[in-house]
Amino acid sequence: MEFDLIARIRARVATRGDVVLGIGDDAALLQVPPDRQLAVSMDTLNAGVHFPEDTPPSAIGWKALAVNLSDLAAMGAQPAWCTLSLSLPQADPAWIDAFLDGFLSLAGQHDVALVGGDTTRGPLSIGVTVHGLVTPGQALRRDGARVGEDVWVTGTLGDAAAALAAKLAGAALDRSLRERLERPTPRIDAGRALAGLASACIDVSDGLLADLGHVCLASGVGAVVELDRLPASSALARFPAATRWPWQAGGGDDYELCFCAARERRDAVLQALRDTATPATRIGRIVDGDSVRALDAAGAEWQPPRSGYAHFAG
Amino acid sequence: MEFDLIARIRARVATRGDVVLGIGDDAALLQVPPDRQLAVSMDTLNAGVHFPEDTPPSAIGWKALAVNLSDLAAMGAQPAWCTLSLSLPQADPAWIDAFLDGFLSLAGQHDVALVGGDTTRGPLSIGVTVHGLVTPGQALRRDGARVGEDVWVTGTLGDAAAALAAKLAGAALDRSLRERLERPTPRIDAGRALAGLASACIDVSDGLLADLGHVCLASGVGAVVELDRLPASSALARFPAATRWPWQAGGGDDYELCFCAARERRDAVLQALRDTATPATRIGRIVDGDSVRALDAAGAEWQPPRSGYAHFAG
Repeated sequence: MEFDLIARIRARVATRGDVVLGIGDDAALLQVPPDRQLAVSMDTLNAGVHFPEDTPPSAIGWKALAVNLSDLAAMGAQPAWCTLSLSLPQADPAWIDAFLDGFLSLAGQHDVALVGGDTTRGPLSIGVTVHGLVTPGQALRRDGARVGEDVWVTGTLGDAAAALAAKLAGAALDRSLRERLERPTPRIDAGRALAGLASACIDVSDGLLADLGHVCLASGVGAVVELDRLPASSALARFPAATRWPWQAGGGDDYELCFCAARERRDAVLQALRDTATPATRIGRIVDGDSVRALDAAGAEWQPPRSGYAHFAG
Repeated sequence: MEFDLIARIRARVATRGDVVLGIGDDAALLQVPPDRQLAVSMDTLNAGVHFPEDTPPSAIGWKALAVNLSDLAAMGAQPAWCTLSLSLPQADPAWIDAFLDGFLSLAGQHDVALVGGDTTRGPLSIGVTVHGLVTPGQALRRDGARVGEDVWVTGTLGDAAAALAAKLAGAALDRSLRERLERPTPRIDAGRALAGLASACIDVSDGLLADLGHVCLASGVGAVVELDRLPASSALARFPAATRWPWQAGGGDDYELCFCAARERRDAVLQALRDTATPATRIGRIVDGDSVRALDAAGAEWQPPRSGYAHFAG
């Protein structure tokens, strides 16, 4: 049965010229260009932890790849290949087909070839490993932020957290917010445009303040974020700041890029992102220290009700 | 908490000169030599499906990496890097430490650097992606078997299945059999020695007849296996053939290599494997057809009580 499922997946995948051997052997064989480094990231989504149990399978497929591609975006890497490990309570061809609709649709957008993996019996869980290519020395790391630099974020923040909050409360779900939760957009083009321009970068998966905290820890710096600068979608802007800020600053799952760049590069950053049709906003600055402080409009320090999203927090 | 777990793992891993950036960023950065192809495989082990719930954590760690390295062995690839996705019901530092004892001990034996992954909350599940290097054109694929060739297997077969059967029956467990089940040896050196010599190769994970069937399907051939030639350990040889054969021919989890090679290469195969201290036995031949037939000592066709190990079979 596993064999049938794999045949079903194999029949639908696209390939690329650098895939020497794809699905169907003990390992895939891939050709990495001699002038590129390999960027590898692996993230697993578990039902009930990373997505609500009633999420449509096509959205699960999309999101499982999206969160992984987002890691490549945050490195400034060009996606190339992925592998998929699918644990399912039972073999369900209709579920698989819908899952693949979402997964392969996003893969096609970024010319990512699915080259291997496995299917096993178990509680619903989707593991993905993505492989990208990056020019040596150009990768966007977490450890390059320097005091005095601007802190930026792409797109808007808080939509996914607002959608999840509405869903958990049983409230009506705005369609645009729901899309942000179920079908996040990995900022691949923006990440590539920022390679060589930004000094540090991370994708916003745990929550802005938590993720910026990871950058600060790796770089040995602190940061200040001005909450009234945080970009909000029109759907989110309807909420008062006291409701909105926790979602924007503390909610996860936005998959925007938070990055740092020298002040002299403001115009270059804006131009590079404009070329990829990516909105970007300056939201703060890197300072001496070892913490991330969020300030309200009056300049007073603000604490989110709960910072970030800790998978093991209980 | 996830962050603490990752720090705990990071503190223990070894690195390699070709790891540009390891654990701690959005992706690992790796340098693939220009004259090598990348071999990638990903396999997940779920508690209660791929190992009994009461398996010691160090054995789980070992086996999770071993089954993946075995896929690289079956390609004739040299292991280089791996990523680990660990789903745990709760964060348990003592469990993690014991798990890492097994995982990193095997990684160290093969100079494999753990370069990334994630830890998440969920039912116990271990996903691993391994990366190996292989000279272009030298990889051992499944699709190269030709009529008239010998079928070989390394080591001995059936020990893991015998151990699992004893365990499920509540019988006393021979220590050597238990080691085969809990700490299988990936045949890395043998796989590398066979690159360029064998025409096709697979690792025995689902069961000999099932796995040889995958080779036959990919190669468009059939095969005949002589059961009384199947190599048995001294612990297994004590059982009568009627008990032993189903374990040897149908049981999985042995992680030996089953491979095909031209008759003229018999001496070269034996010499290459002797150089890696790997026992090898000729067990049959490739024939016209599309099925794998197992013959008893009298030359009569034999059917295992249940062929192979189908993860979704029920």
